[in-house]
Amino acid sequence: MKFATIFATVAICTTFHKCNGKSKPKPSCSYPPSQWCRSLEIAIECKVQKQCLELNATKPNLAVPPVEVTLYYESLCPGCRTFISHQLYPTWTMLQDIMEVKLVPYVNTEGIPTGNAPFTCQQGEAECDSNMIQSCILHLAGHSAFPVIYCMESSADVLRAAQPCLQLHAPSMAWNDITSCVKGELGHKLMYENALTTRALNPAHTHVPWVTFNGEYTVELQDKAMSSLFNLVCNLYKGGKPPACTGALKKLDRSYC
Amino acid sequence: MKFATIFATVAICTTFHKCNGKSKPKPSCSYPPSQWCRSLEIAIECKVQKQCLELNATKPNLAVPPVEVTLYYESLCPGCRTFISHQLYPTWTMLQDIMEVKLVPYVNTEGIPTGNAPFTCQQGEAECDSNMIQSCILHLAGHSAFPVIYCMESSADVLRAAQPCLQLHAPSMAWNDITSCVKGELGHKLMYENALTTRALNPAHTHVPWVTFNGEYTVELQDKAMSSLFNLVCNLYKGGKPPACTGALKKLDRSYC
Repeated sequence: MKFATIFATVAICTTFHKCNGKSKPKPSCSYPPSQWCRSLEIAIECKVQKQCLELNATKPNLAVPPVEVTLYYESLCPGCRTFISHQLYPTWTMLQDIMEVKLVPYVNTEGIPTGNAPFTCQQGEAECDSNMIQSCILHLAGHSAFPVIYCMESSADVLRAAQPCLQLHAPSMAWNDITSCVKGELGHKLMYENALTTRALNPAHTHVPWVTFNGEYTVELQDKAMSSLFNLVCNLYKGGKPPACTGALKKLDRSYC
Repeated sequence: MKFATIFATVAICTTFHKCNGKSKPKPSCSYPPSQWCRSLEIAIECKVQKQCLELNATKPNLAVPPVEVTLYYESLCPGCRTFISHQLYPTWTMLQDIMEVKLVPYVNTEGIPTGNAPFTCQQGEAECDSNMIQSCILHLAGHSAFPVIYCMESSADVLRAAQPCLQLHAPSMAWNDITSCVKGELGHKLMYENALTTRALNPAHTHVPWVTFNGEYTVELQDKAMSSLFNLVCNLYKGGKPPACTGALKKLDRSYC
């Protein structure tokens, strides 16, 4: 263990951030922790190769498909904000190896925007703007999208948080890309698709947050999701349970400074 | 159930955010979701009284003390950032009723700053600044402090994230309060206290992140914390386990839009 700790210190800390020495740390890598293990290049830039190797070594059997959790929501609805902040995002953070999240920020607006007519939000401009911004972020920000959406939903002011949250969690993206999407055809198209997806729900949704698991909605699943999504996802996953579910030790996890 | 859903819609959505009507939503309340149930006044302002009543109704027995988790860390160390982002904060988000988190952002700097001498960080200015800023936030931002710290640690650039994260999660605080603390005697005093707390650890820490539970450190607890803190906190809590630990249904949770 002593050796492993020293090794981790050498591997992780000497160049990126000298933990026990006097030299100044080099500038931080330009990726948030949620992205560090996405590619070898990023792991090298952020000096977390060993951590990422460990992470891969403890991943569950990827032949078993992850639990697909789809949330239909309104971006300003208090119940949706609570569910995203206190259940969906923290659960996904800990269980993302066995869980795939899809977000559909369009519900309860009246009418479906057509392909040609300008999109009109029936519920008020603030939420309309916020839903549209989130649709564009989900389309354009790739793997950073959910951290950005969570940052918005857990902030004091969802709409005002959009730009700083994008900068914090997807710094390689320009805010202009989002505003262009919101004001242009792409934003309209995305909201149209969200509308169609929402209207196609069977059974039809009667409230939000509305959650489906592998495309299925039942009252029991919804109730369990609202009570303890973490437990539910662990139970629904058909592969070998990861340490996060069982409490088993990840024996390789020694990436200390 | 139908009635409960309708009631929730009426209670939560008609004034703050009209879910099914055409009127524009009123401006969002000025608190993030993490603060909504902190007081009756805030719950009323944010129109989430019913949700907060439900939350209180499903809280565990508060006569049993929460599990005290103390993290000694460096704010720029990759292993600490990963632990805070992927274990500590999401676990606290879901288990805060049975868990108390203390953060000590001071370790592995050389020497203890004295009461009078100017504080000198031995490890490089960026981390020194970042540790000091986080010490001031922890002292000044009250219950918003941990969300702000998490926001920083999970961002692409910890130090640059400080100001926007404070604005997002503690909007009532002025950034000047933090910079005054960092540049003045208070910041120095806080770092001095952190240094004393860290140096008093028994056993002495040999790396970071270093985690104690109810003041105790063991290799076994540390290993379990790194593998699955969520399970560990559920297991360590001596009171009745909350639904987040057991997967039991929170029967009252019907705060839908």
